[in-house]
Amino acid sequence: MTDNPAATTDRRPGGRTARVRAQVLDAVRAELAERGHEGLTMEGVATRAGVHRTTVYRRWHDVGGLLADVIDAAGETDWQPPDTGSLHGDLTALNEEIQESLLVRPSFAVALVAASFHSEQAARAQTRLWADRYAQCEILVARAVARAELPPTEARALLITATAPLYHHLVLLRSAPDPHLPERSAATAVAAARAGAFSL
Amino acid sequence: MTDNPAATTDRRPGGRTARVRAQVLDAVRAELAERGHEGLTMEGVATRAGVHRTTVYRRWHDVGGLLADVIDAAGETDWQPPDTGSLHGDLTALNEEIQESLLVRPSFAVALVAASFHSEQAARAQTRLWADRYAQCEILVARAVARAELPPTEARALLITATAPLYHHLVLLRSAPDPHLPERSAATAVAAARAGAFSL
Repeated sequence: MTDNPAATTDRRPGGRTARVRAQVLDAVRAELAERGHEGLTMEGVATRAGVHRTTVYRRWHDVGGLLADVIDAAGETDWQPPDTGSLHGDLTALNEEIQESLLVRPSFAVALVAASFHSEQAARAQTRLWADRYAQCEILVARAVARAELPPTEARALLITATAPLYHHLVLLRSAPDPHLPERSAATAVAAARAGAFSL
Repeated sequence: MTDNPAATTDRRPGGRTARVRAQVLDAVRAELAERGHEGLTMEGVATRAGVHRTTVYRRWHDVGGLLADVIDAAGETDWQPPDTGSLHGDLTALNEEIQESLLVRPSFAVALVAASFHSEQAARAQTRLWADRYAQCEILVARAVARAELPPTEARALLITATAPLYHHLVLLRSAPDPHLPERSAATAVAAARAGAFSL
């Protein structure tokens, strides 16, 4: 694209470059959901997106590049952590969102986890996305400390304790879904935090 | 094998059937560790095991069958949960074992997780193996209750809280290894249990 004099103007938000990216990433998400990452091909994405395949190769290089970009795009949405007025309520709402994303069929979240075992680029993008999301969620703990619900607390460890059982049950153990798990796992993390398990 | 009159005697433990299975499963573990499940083929396993490939096809049918049997074989070893004299010590030892299995390179445990996204048979075998292991570990909690370390406690939920952060950090988030994580995650689960988070 750099050899095209129109390219620079096309890179503005909402320009052709952004439009092509949106079309291609929509196609990646649809193909991933329908076929999993094993069925993801540069040609399949190009056809579905209605974009010339040389454009897809030039910009994303390979399937790993497509996966990484679709994960990066997920990180660009203006997701906001819940704000219910209590740590227990916030963590329960967060866990319900996670449980929903892992149980919906086809699950884009589960497809990304599967893909991360096969593409280093996808794995790194997923690690970045999760780091960002956990960083965004630290505000839940800061607010709880400000409300004097908790002593000064290591936020990341508390957040992992609250959320890890969801992934463990639904992605690794493949347990039957338990509608009480989001709340129970939130309550466990709050109990441990109040007992000083994550105190600074 | 059923059309061979010698087959029944061969099925005794230590007989030819058991020996062939041991050779084939050793080859599956070695191939998985070296190449991951994507590099696993019936032919590669037969060659490595020094077993005729028709034998491998007849007995295991496909790569999913090999994966499921290697997971089932892991469940047949006489693994014993730790017994250190305290719940905190037991959970720490258990977590250290888990952390070691996930960090060793190549990791058979991580290869099985990756494989479970691609083979329904492997996924079901892994779910069974994990269910068995968590059931075996319930004794840790029963002993802690008997020692009056804890009120009557839902063992499975406590065990998941203790162990899930290991898998979350090392398999999903791909965090840098933290030598304190096994103990910290054990301590968190004990704190939550003492606070009544898993009380029956």
